[in-house]
Amino acid sequence: MSARVMVVDDVEANVRLLEAKLTIEYFDVVSCHDGLTALTLAAETQPDLILLDVMMPGMDGFETCRRLKAQAETRHIPVVLVTALDGREDKIRGLEAGADDFITKPLDDVILFARVRSLSRLKQVMDELREREENSRRMGVSTDGDRRLRAEGGRVLVVDDNEAQAKKIADQLGVEHRVTIEANADAAIKAVRGPLDLVIVNVAADSFDGLRVLALSKSGDARRAPVLAVVDPMDRARMVKALELGAADVVNRPIDPDELSARARTQIRRKRYTDFLRDKLDSSLELAVTDALTGLHNRRYMTGQLDALVNRAVHGGSSVALLVLDIDHFKLVNDGFGHDAGDEVLIEFAVRLATNVRAVDLPCRLGGEEFVVVMPGADLEDAGRVAERIRRDVASQPFRIMGGKEMLTITISIGVAATCGPHDTPELLLKRADEGVYEAKAKGRNIVIAKAA
Amino acid sequence: MSARVMVVDDVEANVRLLEAKLTIEYFDVVSCHDGLTALTLAAETQPDLILLDVMMPGMDGFETCRRLKAQAETRHIPVVLVTALDGREDKIRGLEAGADDFITKPLDDVILFARVRSLSRLKQVMDELREREENSRRMGVSTDGDRRLRAEGGRVLVVDDNEAQAKKIADQLGVEHRVTIEANADAAIKAVRGPLDLVIVNVAADSFDGLRVLALSKSGDARRAPVLAVVDPMDRARMVKALELGAADVVNRPIDPDELSARARTQIRRKRYTDFLRDKLDSSLELAVTDALTGLHNRRYMTGQLDALVNRAVHGGSSVALLVLDIDHFKLVNDGFGHDAGDEVLIEFAVRLATNVRAVDLPCRLGGEEFVVVMPGADLEDAGRVAERIRRDVASQPFRIMGGKEMLTITISIGVAATCGPHDTPELLLKRADEGVYEAKAKGRNIVIAKAA
Ligand SMILES: [Mg+2]
Ligand SMILES: [Mg+2]
Repeated sequence: MSARVMVVDDVEANVRLLEAKLTIEYFDVVSCHDGLTALTLAAETQPDLILLDVMMPGMDGFETCRRLKAQAETRHIPVVLVTALDGREDKIRGLEAGADDFITKPLDDVILFARVRSLSRLKQVMDELREREENSRRMGVSTDGDRRLRAEGGRVLVVDDNEAQAKKIADQLGVEHRVTIEANADAAIKAVRGPLDLVIVNVAADSFDGLRVLALSKSGDARRAPVLAVVDPMDRARMVKALELGAADVVNRPIDPDELSARARTQIRRKRYTDFLRDKLDSSLELAVTDALTGLHNRRYMTGQLDALVNRAVHGGSSVALLVLDIDHFKLVNDGFGHDAGDEVLIEFAVRLATNVRAVDLPCRLGGEEFVVVMPGADLEDAGRVAERIRRDVASQPFRIMGGKEMLTITISIGVAATCGPHDTPELLLKRADEGVYEAKAKGRNIVIAKAA
Repeated sequence: MSARVMVVDDVEANVRLLEAKLTIEYFDVVSCHDGLTALTLAAETQPDLILLDVMMPGMDGFETCRRLKAQAETRHIPVVLVTALDGREDKIRGLEAGADDFITKPLDDVILFARVRSLSRLKQVMDELREREENSRRMGVSTDGDRRLRAEGGRVLVVDDNEAQAKKIADQLGVEHRVTIEANADAAIKAVRGPLDLVIVNVAADSFDGLRVLALSKSGDARRAPVLAVVDPMDRARMVKALELGAADVVNRPIDPDELSARARTQIRRKRYTDFLRDKLDSSLELAVTDALTGLHNRRYMTGQLDALVNRAVHGGSSVALLVLDIDHFKLVNDGFGHDAGDEVLIEFAVRLATNVRAVDLPCRLGGEEFVVVMPGADLEDAGRVAERIRRDVASQPFRIMGGKEMLTITISIGVAATCGPHDTPELLLKRADEGVYEAKAKGRNIVIAKAA
């Protein structure tokens, strides 16, 4: 896979060298010589990856990285810090500044390319999710967007047959995460299908092939938990293979505990961000079929479900019943106590409705004071019983409005209908139930009228 | 990247051999010996790719492929047909049965692995989109799902300096697509950023490096059009590199016109399916902020936009005005002519509303007969003018209802308000406009009342 890579280094010769290496491997390269330029250039050119020199006059790599991770337009772009130092502290400082990885000069080309490919591949799916989410924000669909993404409390599985090393990992990560250890490869492969935020696999294990465990954790339906591979720094081939097979990150043996913590945090945070984007998209989608005031299903949802259920019923499937419910004299509530009180009544009514129907029933608000319950598998008699229960519950307990300052007795009129015969339609069903409501109103309200076809 | 690969072959020894080869490369292998089993096993295990033998007793590979591509649970899984024959006709027959590629025994391992990796990588983004779409369907959000995906009429760019070959490609594909040719690499790199359904790159070109053109077409923001690489069958290294860099498919020189057509159709259809999934998700998201009856914005959208605009206005930004519009005596329409006629009036009113506001204004239906227009940048006077125009347009032209059988004169009462001062809020703004409506009703209706703060 190709990718656009941004190179940032204050030394022109370093930039030229990296540019040449990356260009030969068919990467699309953008470059600049200082942190400040990097901030705007990255926002403009949207690279798939940034290779960022640490030692630069003015704004250094750590600060540039922190700022890249703080501005909305560049936050999602992976950053790899490049430095001449191999100092442990710099490494951890870099990871804590939000860097996704840390490589040292002189650069090992094979590892560099494996890294670049792995990080830009990971970015692909996230880009797709981010774009859908941005579209939904542009359209004005907004759900709770400000949920803070914690990096703590992750569910971590350690797959390692080296008891001392596994214990060291568990002790270190156990401080802020929930860690389990699995020394057996087969059991581990089953375990990775569970809900996990991170899998740590020793790919230099003695008793099993760690690369196989890694591969199986990244194929099929377990694909979502990121894998951090523990590698032997002397075994370059396995390290490259681990990245190729889909490891999100690698950590060298012997393990530096602080470095491990920082890398685990980065992975868990990224996993949660992706999950968050998925959830947010799904809940934005859910809004399309939800009534904003009451949280019940809306007319759009009711129509789709009723069509499908009636269609099944007339083709020999089980019957479906329908309640149409209308709050009696609702206009008097609005006129007498204001719209806010009216909304309080609607919300409280929705709660009573939802708590008095069966689990399979679909309570919906069509708009105004009109509600419908779709009842799969119910006949006229079943539905009538449920309707009567709702009517009684509503009439028997006054509604608290205006924050409890007033109590109102509310009644409802309910029409009931159920499918019958091969020529029934959703429209006819709704019409019969509507007629039931009409008759109930004519008979003085607070009553259930079931209309046989 | 790892992947789950399904192997289907009637000869046990062939299955074993492929299993061994794939397992060494860390693929997760599932296998069976006949087409019928393949259909259910694929649905169950959801592999990322299917390697399907053509010559099998009973259901052959072509038929199995056709059925895999016909059943909903397996339609999206790439199928590579494996055969001992190198017959041109079989190749085309396979592609037309929906196969994504065609490889011949004895298998060239390097090419096999490059293929498998490339196809399972392509599948990754699509899986993400499919899953969101499935969730939305499960939630009952349904948009126009039955749009037929045509493989014809694609916008195809051919990047080739070999004049005779480019002409041959254009002649063949020009029958069903819109083809343009670009012999210059720099111009081509610009052209791939345009709206295209397929890019065909000669990676064996003399005057430019085709792999670079391919790489640049797959990096940055041009990433979406699939690339079909024209390769020299003797140059395995370039073919593998082309797949690695993101080519969706390769075709050998000299080009077989019918094979080219079939491969182009497969790519264009897949591109359109992905676009379709994106569009469908975006339009499902849009439903969340749209009033189902009139197509205007709904209350959820209005609330979000108004909050943001008022917030900007009170912090020194430009003002925002608001109209609240209520149809006079709407209950009489419903009671006298039925709900359907009421809906006709609401829909027609929405049309008049939308055509009488400015392009930047946001016409919304809050529910029932209550509408709001949010007017960014407008003051009380501007908004009053627009309100008066709407009032006049509604009152002056009777509304056709019941399919034109009746004409009704409709009037509306409008309240107008605009932001003022640093302590204004969306609630206060709405309240003032509501008071305007109330006064308008009291004064006999069909009138605009602007309420200064
Ligand atoms: Mg430097
Ligand atoms: Mg066979």
